[in-house]
This record gives sequence, structure tokens and C-alpha cells, in this order.
Amino acid sequence: MIIHLEDNITQNEKDVLLNKLKELQIKTNLVSTQFMDYIIGMPKTDFDIRTIGNLRGIADIHRVSDAYKLVSKKWKVNDTLIDLGDDVTIGGSELAIMAGPCSIEGEEQIENTVQHLLKNNIKIMRGGVYKPRSSPYAFRGMGMDGLKLFYKHCSENGIKVITEVMQVSQVEEMVDYVDIFQVGARNSQNFNLLDILGKVDKPIMIKRGMSGTIEELLASAEYVFSNGNEKILLCERGIRTYESAYRNTLDLNAIPILKEKSHLPVIVDPSHGIGLRQHVATMALAGVMCGADGVIVEVHENPEKAFSDGQQTLYYRQAEKLYQKLKTTEELMKEF
Amino acid sequence: MIIHLEDNITQNEKDVLLNKLKELQIKTNLVSTQFMDYIIGMPKTDFDIRTIGNLRGIADIHRVSDAYKLVSKKWKVNDTLIDLGDDVTIGGSELAIMAGPCSIEGEEQIENTVQHLLKNNIKIMRGGVYKPRSSPYAFRGMGMDGLKLFYKHCSENGIKVITEVMQVSQVEEMVDYVDIFQVGARNSQNFNLLDILGKVDKPIMIKRGMSGTIEELLASAEYVFSNGNEKILLCERGIRTYESAYRNTLDLNAIPILKEKSHLPVIVDPSHGIGLRQHVATMALAGVMCGADGVIVEVHENPEKAFSDGQQTLYYRQAEKLYQKLKTTEELMKEF
Amino acid sequence: MIIHLEDNITQNEKDVLLNKLKELQIKTNLVSTQFMDYIIGMPKTDFDIRTIGNLRGIADIHRVSDAYKLVSKKWKVNDTLIDLGDDVTIGGSELAIMAGPCSIEGEEQIENTVQHLLKNNIKIMRGGVYKPRSSPYAFRGMGMDGLKLFYKHCSENGIKVITEVMQVSQVEEMVDYVDIFQVGARNSQNFNLLDILGKVDKPIMIKRGMSGTIEELLASAEYVFSNGNEKILLCERGIRTYESAYRNTLDLNAIPILKEKSHLPVIVDPSHGIGLRQHVATMALAGVMCGADGVIVEVHENPEKAFSDGQQTLYYRQAEKLYQKLKTTEELMKEF
Amino acid sequence: MIIHLEDNITQNEKDVLLNKLKELQIKTNLVSTQFMDYIIGMPKTDFDIRTIGNLRGIADIHRVSDAYKLVSKKWKVNDTLIDLGDDVTIGGSELAIMAGPCSIEGEEQIENTVQHLLKNNIKIMRGGVYKPRSSPYAFRGMGMDGLKLFYKHCSENGIKVITEVMQVSQVEEMVDYVDIFQVGARNSQNFNLLDILGKVDKPIMIKRGMSGTIEELLASAEYVFSNGNEKILLCERGIRTYESAYRNTLDLNAIPILKEKSHLPVIVDPSHGIGLRQHVATMALAGVMCGADGVIVEVHENPEKAFSDGQQTLYYRQAEKLYQKLKTTEELMKEF
Repeated sequence: MIIHLEDNITQNEKDVLLNKLKELQIKTNLVSTQFMDYIIGMPKTDFDIRTIGNLRGIADIHRVSDAYKLVSKKWKVNDTLIDLGDDVTIGGSELAIMAGPCSIEGEEQIENTVQHLLKNNIKIMRGGVYKPRSSPYAFRGMGMDGLKLFYKHCSENGIKVITEVMQVSQVEEMVDYVDIFQVGARNSQNFNLLDILGKVDKPIMIKRGMSGTIEELLASAEYVFSNGNEKILLCERGIRTYESAYRNTLDLNAIPILKEKSHLPVIVDPSHGIGLRQHVATMALAGVMCGADGVIVEVHENPEKAFSDGQQTLYYRQAEKLYQKLKTTEELMKEF
Repeated sequence: MIIHLEDNITQNEKDVLLNKLKELQIKTNLVSTQFMDYIIGMPKTDFDIRTIGNLRGIADIHRVSDAYKLVSKKWKVNDTLIDLGDDVTIGGSELAIMAGPCSIEGEEQIENTVQHLLKNNIKIMRGGVYKPRSSPYAFRGMGMDGLKLFYKHCSENGIKVITEVMQVSQVEEMVDYVDIFQVGARNSQNFNLLDILGKVDKPIMIKRGMSGTIEELLASAEYVFSNGNEKILLCERGIRTYESAYRNTLDLNAIPILKEKSHLPVIVDPSHGIGLRQHVATMALAGVMCGADGVIVEVHENPEKAFSDGQQTLYYRQAEKLYQKLKTTEELMKEF
Repeated sequence: MIIHLEDNITQNEKDVLLNKLKELQIKTNLVSTQFMDYIIGMPKTDFDIRTIGNLRGIADIHRVSDAYKLVSKKWKVNDTLIDLGDDVTIGGSELAIMAGPCSIEGEEQIENTVQHLLKNNIKIMRGGVYKPRSSPYAFRGMGMDGLKLFYKHCSENGIKVITEVMQVSQVEEMVDYVDIFQVGARNSQNFNLLDILGKVDKPIMIKRGMSGTIEELLASAEYVFSNGNEKILLCERGIRTYESAYRNTLDLNAIPILKEKSHLPVIVDPSHGIGLRQHVATMALAGVMCGADGVIVEVHENPEKAFSDGQQTLYYRQAEKLYQKLKTTEELMKEF
Repeated sequence: MIIHLEDNITQNEKDVLLNKLKELQIKTNLVSTQFMDYIIGMPKTDFDIRTIGNLRGIADIHRVSDAYKLVSKKWKVNDTLIDLGDDVTIGGSELAIMAGPCSIEGEEQIENTVQHLLKNNIKIMRGGVYKPRSSPYAFRGMGMDGLKLFYKHCSENGIKVITEVMQVSQVEEMVDYVDIFQVGARNSQNFNLLDILGKVDKPIMIKRGMSGTIEELLASAEYVFSNGNEKILLCERGIRTYESAYRNTLDLNAIPILKEKSHLPVIVDPSHGIGLRQHVATMALAGVMCGADGVIVEVHENPEKAFSDGQQTLYYRQAEKLYQKLKTTEELMKEF
């Protein structure tokens, strides 16, 4: 049960309500986000909403039978729109495209990529500065130095920055240089990280875990929302299966199902989702056909020399063709 | 290695060639299909093609490093076109649509479906008469009586019939009433069935196994081809994973990869691929976006009363909307 | 619901009972096995057993809520004992060991293996004469010639034969040369094959499918039982997962669960279950610790030269150590 | 390549060595643990060890072709022994048993469990105070208050404490109240956490990820080792597959393979590995049969009332039977 509180609810009214719920033996969580105050109530047994319906300060009450509550479409039927400022939005009628290298490698590479994005009217740049790597001996990213350069060049050119945050202690130092925090597949159930990201007023894109269920992805989003941050993006990036002809199995089924279950925007990551450069564009387009609100894709001036993920990274000329096709597909989707 | 023989090769020339290969200790398989004669040679070590290149009767020699040979794109770069007669083809520039009920249930249902297909200019009807069911107590299909009715009504209306064959002994009785034999997911590695279907001059659509790899699907197709039948369709219908929010995980990655590796047409089955009626159309369109040559989809006048698979079967009105969108998407694909 | 009929039920009593069930709108299946007659009833709604309980000819009535009925432990709490004759039984207090090569390769190899088994007091020899192979160009087994040799040498030495049957048409020709028919993983849901094996009076060992569920394995066994054959063995041989450090993931969880759900004996196949010779013995012993009634294991005089599966086949000296340890473990299990 | 340095190597000798390696264009990592100093060298091409073999300060040089180096058995063939003090060791000839509740719930529960362990001569108690939960509204553990109580009662009774650490910031506050840090399945690739645990002189037990490969588990252990901590335990706790008859698929294949590839001790967790109380003991014994160095198992005075994981938690009387059987099985293993 989600109890949506009125903006002008008084402390006294809140106390009355909470006491009533306590009396009814309903476990409660108070949630205050950038936009609203909510009480999440977990009645153990069936309970008559009218018992509390007449109390003051309540805007609305919604029953939500899902395990996740605030991210469910059962109470909020309108899609969530993420506003990044400067007319860049995600989740509305326009498809969001995020492009850039797997890893930030240096200033020249950043400038280079920014030019590529500007030329193609792409508004969001991806790039990792903290890289989760299976081996401790692999390149682990440029860290804050890289991020500052990354943000400087992007913000000067009206481009928004999305980058991965790997641990709680990074959030504070990163927050001023990031437009969207990305939570990687390996951290999809790092609940402490999700908790802290719920206390930040920046959008969070959560990638589905390596073998995460759709339900688990939504529960992870619930962590962020219930800690106070409504600005959440969900990202399908492929799951681990027995098939070895490609890197991951892009689960496009997940897209219409996430859109059905949740009001949050859904982004598709075809680069990790198939892991083979020659098929990334195809899978990006298929993702949009499935209803994705955006695409995140790896591009590099010279993928063969990229510090990481080169085999799944597009050349600029391939990316440009893809952007065109994405536009055309977006138009088609509006007709449907 | 595929040695493509000349049409007019003499028996003597063939013997000379086979003897030479034997002498070189190359294991050989002679393959004669509807269209051509081939020798599949398996040299144990690297071998100089010029050793045999000057022998008579050889049209061409191709090295194919894949485990599957004849179905590989490495020797036959042009896509295979399946001609069903009456201007119905699969694998060419036009998208093939196959629609119909999961199970054939009776004459009225057949007539009804035929009318639906005629109205929408759909040329191929699906419908099961032999149904593989987990439980021995479930409905197992109308058998030959159903097939004869099915074929009668379709052939009278210029509609082609695709239906599943489950065992070797059914092939002979079914062959005159079938335009495409379907091999189901559970029989994807029923090698005896594949052998016998290689000796029939009817197209065979092989569904990927429940947890079949892309490589295994191609190897199953190789069974059919190497027994003499070049008319093969591959079908992606979803694989088994840990995710339980839907029936199967439609592996759309498989489509561009199959198209890259093989010259055979690829069909997508969104009905089994997601298993939820409300998302079948979406996944069908995404499949086409991935490059599928055709779509096979379950429709029924009243899915709620269907003998099987009702939850994933489209109502006519839903199917009609899908056909329209498929046309539009097909047009878009031609532009790309 | 399983209605267990009395041995001396008259046709008239049977008709009265069936009519009554029809009147109650209960779908029925009549099952006659080597041992008993049963009616499987599928009441659509809850139904009072007393309505039919007083009719003549009924020995007992059992409610079974599982999807599978006759193979369930819910009605038959005592473990099934498979009697192969000559004091060789499976499913009783003694652990059954089945050993032999992956493929039957020739008379010398058979004699050789028989000597190895005799020396170690092993009573059941495995060996394939029809081999399911991914590639049509691979060795597919010696067929009936091999089977006749195999059976001749075994029967002369009091050793029982287990071998794989791949298709319906082989059953008749094989039946006189086989003590246990094996259904392979790829045929685990070949329902026509299961049907026909239900009409044979020889034990059937069904291997779990490549990605078969425990429930599906039991449903496959139900096919055999409901067609008239109560002599069934279940075999866990590893499932397909994402892990590639070994061949299959031996699912030992399945053993206690199968023993809990069904009265049928359970065999473990560590050779396919891990696929690495050096660990086969370990996994065999673990399987027995899990409650397996028997072990099936690949041995060969010279695994490096085996026609198939050499990498998972034990040398005789390794197998002999394993047999000793199996005995010791079996003793331990009796104490527990 | 692992270059094992002499204890008394001088700074100058170290510099000479590092310079030589740099000159040879070999990327190096200097690793200093509780016990030794190592240089991990990554030669890009084949390289002649004699080039550096005669330099001073080198105790030994090992080629290790695995992606993980320090945890590999290729250079350290003797099994690692973890000494917890007070004669409690893991990885030697004696089987380690860790038992206790899923969650620490309060002082009475702790005392109660301690009595149970003392009575059965169990030396290590498990219990979670920070609980990773899919839902943000679920019980998340007693935190440091719980841990202090937990540690107090255990240390007073000579019992060692193992508990899960979820994030970097907890390490410092927990370190004095913990004998073994556990890294949970969801944090198996939380590389920042692994880094920091590499700087602590307490043993770390790393659980395999939900869908982690064996190779990834070893790479995670390499993170800890290469940061300076050699005291590492690996834990198999079941992987995620399509099977839903139980909670996870306990991958017992992983145990002999981990023992073959690494010198680190391996612990089996049958509670999470099957998730069904009635089968936990069976799977524990099977794990020992596979060569596990220890077992971690959930017990509770009253599992039905446990705050978490009750369905997979043993009653004391069940646990006691299991401890007996573990002893017997351990004896058997010594014979083998």
C-alpha cells in the first residue's frame, strides 16, 4: 500500500496517521523524495482502506500487490520523465541516445568524441572512469582526473555525462561531475550503493544484474526510490546463458515487460547485449522496436585501440548510420 | 571442404576423384540433393587444394572451417530462397508470415482461420495435428484426420500448410498434405527424424532446441542437407533461462548471427518466444528488425477457448494490427 | 486420482465404474501394466471419493496432486525394485553399477570389457550402438551388428546389457538383445519413443534432458508407465548451464528431490555429469552420497583411443579404485 | 609470472629487478602480503626466465598461464592452511564446520546457539548482522550492536565468528569483532570491497556469485591476495539455473575443480545450495565427498520463527545428526 501524502500535511496530521497505522499493526516506511512524501504500508492481512481514508493529509491511497511498490505502474500509470536540464529529457516522446567509449582514456579522446556527438546531435556521452574488471591486473580507469576532464568538455558543449559509480565513497566526489550515475551489472544488488544513490538528486541508471531477474531489477530501483530519489532509469544489457556464440543474451523480452510493470524509462545496451560490433546496430534498433526509451552504445574513434571492450565498440561511421536508423525507427514507433 | 561436382560428372570421373581423396586419407561423404551433388571432405591435416583441383568433374572447391559445412555461408554467400509454389517464397525480399492456431481443433476452426488469412493476404497457415505434450494425459492433436481437413481447406484457397512432424513413421503419411514440415524444439536433435526429412522434397523448418546452441541448430540443419534436402528454414523460438517473468527468453541475438553464419532463411516465433499475448506483436516486430525472413505466430478466433497455448495466442483483431505493422516494418528494413 | 483396480475385477464392474466416472464428468485413462490395472482420473473440481468408493472392483483410491501420477511417491510409498533376473536388481539395498565404453567398437573391445567387469563383479555393461551425434559426419555407432555381439558376450557371462535406443523403429529389433533400454538426454521428451517403450516389458532408463526440469523427467516417466511399463529408472546426467569449466553441471540436488517425489530408482551418470576423467570418480561417490540407487560410468581399456567421449572415460585401473570406494560408500550409507 | 622475492631482499636489489623488468617491457605488480613479497609480471610475449634468473633477491620464479596467478595451484602446490588461532584451522586434515543462524536476532538466540555449538564441539559460528535483501522493506540485520554481542559470546567460549561484510565502510568497524569476513554472492565481484579486504589481516571467505563462473571466483580471490591478504576461503553456494524445484543448483562439480586449480580451501554451503531443509544434510555430506575442506550450514533453535531463510535452516536435532555423519564421512575420506 502506498499512501501518497499531501504537500501541506502537518507534522501533527502525519503523527495521527502513523499512530493509526501502528495501531492497525501495519509496518510502515516513510519515504520523502525530491517530489513527494509517501508512506509505504505493509498490512499483514487484508485491510479496509476506509479505516484510514478519512484521515487528514492523505492525497491518495494505492494498493500495490507487487513486491516492489513505488516503481510499480500499478499506482503511477504515467511514464516517468527524467529531465536532465537544457532540454535533454529521457522517457518522453523522444528517443534518448547515449554514446561514447567504454573507458575514458584521455583528453584528446574526450574532445574527439564530443565532436562526434555534436556533429550528430547526440546529447548524452557515456564513458567509464571507474571500471569493474575481473582481473586485478587490468586497467581500472582514470578515476576522478578522468571524470573532471570528461565533465569539463561535455558541459562546455551542452552534453550530459553518464558514468559508472562503483562504491559508496565515490558518490560524494563524483556528484558534481555527473549528470547520470550508472550502476553496473555487477553492482545491481549492491544495496548499500543503491541506498546512498537514493539520497542524491541525480538520475540513476541501474543495469540489470548478470543473471538478475526482472523482479530483482525493479526491487533494486525500489531501493533508490524509497531512499528519496525518483529519478531512475532501468537498463537491459543482456543476461548470462549457456550460449557462447556472443557475449551476453540480450533479453529484449524484458523491455515490454519492464514497461508494463513500471513507470520508469527503459534503456537498452546493445553493445554489452551482444558484444559483437557487427551486430550492435541491429540489436539497438530491435531494442527501440521493443519500446526502449533510449539506447546506450559504445563508440570510439579507433575501437581496435580502445583500452577495453573494443570488439563491441562502433566506429564513428557505423555509429552515424545507426543514429540515422534510430531516428527513422523512432518515427515509425510513433505511428504505431 | 565442400567439393561441388559438375552436373555432368561421369561415374568414372567421380570414382577417380573419390579414389584420389581416399589415397590422401580424406574421409568423404557424398551428398546428392534436389539440386546438386557434393563431396564433403574432412582432411585431417592441412592440405593443398591444388592436389585435386585439376581433376575432372569438379565445379568448385570451398574450404569451410565450421563444424557444419553445407549450411554455412562460407561457401554459399547468396541467401537460400525457398519456393513453395504459387508465388509463395521464403527468404527473398518479401517477409513471410505464417499464422494459425496452436492446434487444429476441427473443420469450423480451420475454415474460420482460412477466412482470416485470406482477408489479410497471409499465404501460410500453421496448425498442429501432432502435439508434443509434457503430460501423457493432455490433448495430443487430431492426427491425420485433422491434417487432411487442414490441407484440403488450405490448398483450395491457395494457402500453404506448415505443421509439426514428430516421428519418422509419420513422414510418409503426412508428406502429401504438408507444404512445410516443422521439427519442434524437443525434436531439434532427433537425428533419425532429421535424416528422414533429408530424403523428402519438402521444406523443413527446424526449431532451435529448448537449450540448443546456435551451432547445434546449424548442425541439425546439416543433417537434413547432407541427406539430400536443401530446403531448410531455421526458427528461433526462445531458449530456457532462469527468468520466469515470461515463458521463454526469445534470443533475438541469434537472428543476425544465424544470418551471418548460414545462407538459410530464419523465422522468428514470438508466440513461444515470450509466451504472453500482450507482447507477441512487439517481439514479432523486433524479430523482423533483427533481420528475420519470416514470422510464425499463433492466432485463434477465441484464444481463451483454444485447446492449447491460449495465453500466447492473438485474437484476430490483434493479429490484423500486427500484419499491418509487419508490412510497415518490412518497408523500413528495405530502406536500411 | 489413481484408482487401483482389483486383479479379479470383471468387465461389467469396470464398465459400471467407468460409467460412473463419465457421469461425474471425470476424464479417465485406463492403464494396464505388467503388474496392475489402474484408472487415472482427472476430476476438474474437488470431488468426494466416497461417491465411487463403494463400487466393486476397486482395490484402492489415491489422490495425487502432482502433474505426474503413477510415478509419484504420493500413492506408492515403497521404492520400486527393478529385477533384471539372475539376482541382478536395481533400487533395492544394493548399489547398482553399470560400466562400459561410450561406444561399442568391436568384438575385442567387448570381450575385454566383459573380463574387466567379471573381475570386478560388475553385473551391468553399458555401451552405445546407436549414437546421437551433433554432426552428421561423426561416427554413429555399430548398430544391430554391434548390439548382437555385445549381447552375446554379456549374456554368456551373466552380465546385463544397457544401451541407448534412438527411435521407435529400433525397439522391435533391439528388444531381444537388451536388458535395459536407455533413452538419451536428447530424446528425453521424444514422446513417441516413450509411448512405444511403455509397451515393452523391459526396464527403461530415462536420462534427464539437456535442460530438462525434474518435473519434466517425471512426466516423461509417466509416459512410459501410463503406456503399460512400470519398470523405469531415472538418470541424472548433468544439465546445461553457463559454466564452461566442465562439460555439464551435474545436478546432485536432483537426486534427493527425485527420491522424495517418486518411487522410481535414480541413477547418477558422473561421466557426462562433469565430463572430465580426473573428477568422474569423485562425482560418482558424491552421487551415491546423495542417495543414488546406482551409477553408470564410462570405462575403456584405452580411453585415449575411444571412438567417442574419451576425455571423460576411466582407465580400468581408475575404475577399479572407484568400484572399491563405491562399496565402502555404500556401506556407510547403510549406517546412515 | 610470479617472482617470489627473498625475505631479505634489499630495496636496491628490488629496484634493479624492477628496472630490468621495465626494460623488458614486462608490466609488473608488486604484492606484499602477511607472509611474502611477490612481483606479478605480465610478459606480452614468450620470455626467457634466465634473463632475470640470476638477479639477486629472487627466491623463485613460476610461470602461471592462468588468468589468476597468486591463487593458482600452478605455483603453490601445497594447500593453504588458514589458522584462526586456538587450534582452529581450515584447510588441513580436519573438516571445518561453521554453523549458526542466517541472521543474528538477539542475545538469547546467540547464547542458545553457542550452547548448541559447544555441546557438539563446533568451533565456528555463522550469523549475519548485515543482510543483503532484495526488498528495501525487509529486515536488514542488527548491525554492529548485533555483531558485538555475537562476538562477545563467541570469544568467551572459544568460538570463532564468521559474518558477512557488505561494504567498504563496514570493514574498519567490524574488523575487531570478526574472525572470518564473508563476502556474499551478490558482492562476489564488488572489487572495491575485495580490494579493501586484501588489506586486512583476517581470513576472507568469498562466495561464488549467483551466476559466477569458477574462473571469476578465482579472479575475485586474486583481488584479495594481490592486495596483501593470503588468507582466503572459496565458497560454493549454488548457482542460478532454470530449475525451480529448489532454490539454487548446488554445483558440486565446482569443488574438485577449485581444488585442482587453486591451493585455497573450499567450503560448501548446502543451505543456500539447495534451500530445502529436508535435503541440506544430504548435500552437505555430498559436498564433503567432493573434497570440500569445510561446511557452512544454517541452524536455528526454531527455524519456523527465524527472521530469514527459515525454510533452509536445520533444527538442532537435525544438525546434530549431520555433525555425526560429517565426522564419519570425514573418516572415510581419509581412507580414500
